[in-house]
Amino acid sequence: MSADQRFRQQAAALGHSFDGQIKVGGNYAPAVRDGDLLYVSGQIPRVGDEILVLGAAGAEVSLEKARFAAKISAMRALALTSRAAGSLDNIVAVPRMTVFVRSEPSFTQQSEVADGASDLLAAILGSVGVHSRTSVGVAQLPKGATVELDFIFKVKFARGA
Amino acid sequence: MSADQRFRQQAAALGHSFDGQIKVGGNYAPAVRDGDLLYVSGQIPRVGDEILVLGAAGAEVSLEKARFAAKISAMRALALTSRAAGSLDNIVAVPRMTVFVRSEPSFTQQSEVADGASDLLAAILGSVGVHSRTSVGVAQLPKGATVELDFIFKVKFARGA
Amino acid sequence: MSADQRFRQQAAALGHSFDGQIKVGGNYAPAVRDGDLLYVSGQIPRVGDEILVLGAAGAEVSLEKARFAAKISAMRALALTSRAAGSLDNIVAVPRMTVFVRSEPSFTQQSEVADGASDLLAAILGSVGVHSRTSVGVAQLPKGATVELDFIFKVKFARGA
Repeated sequence: MSADQRFRQQAAALGHSFDGQIKVGGNYAPAVRDGDLLYVSGQIPRVGDEILVLGAAGAEVSLEKARFAAKISAMRALALTSRAAGSLDNIVAVPRMTVFVRSEPSFTQQSEVADGASDLLAAILGSVGVHSRTSVGVAQLPKGATVELDFIFKVKFARGA
Repeated sequence: MSADQRFRQQAAALGHSFDGQIKVGGNYAPAVRDGDLLYVSGQIPRVGDEILVLGAAGAEVSLEKARFAAKISAMRALALTSRAAGSLDNIVAVPRMTVFVRSEPSFTQQSEVADGASDLLAAILGSVGVHSRTSVGVAQLPKGATVELDFIFKVKFARGA
Repeated sequence: MSADQRFRQQAAALGHSFDGQIKVGGNYAPAVRDGDLLYVSGQIPRVGDEILVLGAAGAEVSLEKARFAAKISAMRALALTSRAAGSLDNIVAVPRMTVFVRSEPSFTQQSEVADGASDLLAAILGSVGVHSRTSVGVAQLPKGATVELDFIFKVKFARGA
């Protein structure tokens, strides 16, 4: 099964489609290519016009819900990468993922939240999805979202692209 | 008009000069080159010895003032890049900008603050300034500054440099 | 004296060994190579199973203790890099270090905390350790740690590796 097929499987399991426009919240690009690297902007768990998970982890948002938010954000990043690279099967490595978790002062399970996204990368990309990772707890995020994730993907772009 | 000229225009509009020494607050370099990339250290809105905007956005600092702080920080980063590369016209891409906004717990307009810097990049660099971006809200920043921005610029360095 | 020897000196001075397994707290890799860059995941001040410094800087954790935590985290990153590259003497540059400091709302000495790690890089790597740096104050970190540091090292990997 291809990475693109596994992506569609995960989208179905999460109950959301990532086929629509991926909106960004400001005057910047969702992803910028540098050579064979694709820098993907910070993604919050937004699908269409709706931010699916709002609030601080550890208070109004459970660990399970925050992990779901991390998965949705990672799916957005993969959808953007697929469009830039033609197919998720063109991803050859994931040098970096950074995970910002809006956290109640006493919430210390940022790694467990980030595992939602890490597990998703493994499920879709297999061994190619092995990544370095930093996860931290922050006071607040754009639009009140629970998580924000950014990425550097290494991609095999088509020749001449 | 060159990017260097547009930089001077923006500096005049902001009412500050970036010709002096760009001080950093610790034992590190303001920018480090790796091949054709320039990694610029986190910049707070400091001009000379003065930090122009202090405090948390959403409380003592208005959105407009925080956007101004983001512009000043971006100008510092551009000034550092100009010195490393000889001219802002040698910038060929901006793979990444990260924007940390010191935020009151209820302040969720980090993207709008970051737009201050994004708009500035567009005004000075044009289409070359299109960048990926991550903006988050943090509890505190060095010296109590309102924002801190770091960058990866792609630069055409002189041969043999 | 080699960088590896200076590393062992620093480990002795800090009173800890970094010879054991470097555990990570989730489903990801401690470091991922991309060409001649090594992206090192966020490191907290853990030695073996124990996190040496917990709590927020400025409250239960003094500046001195937080600086110690930054040094321990940087030692972990260097230990990981040494294993990936064969020797610390194969490090040729340090394009980026990012330092997240769990901070009390009024604590603004994130740069001074980060200096602990910057001084350590200088002591072990000499001029090769000159780096760009971003340091911010965050609400919380995984497992309640006081600091988390990530890195991009440039490394001379063995041919064919």
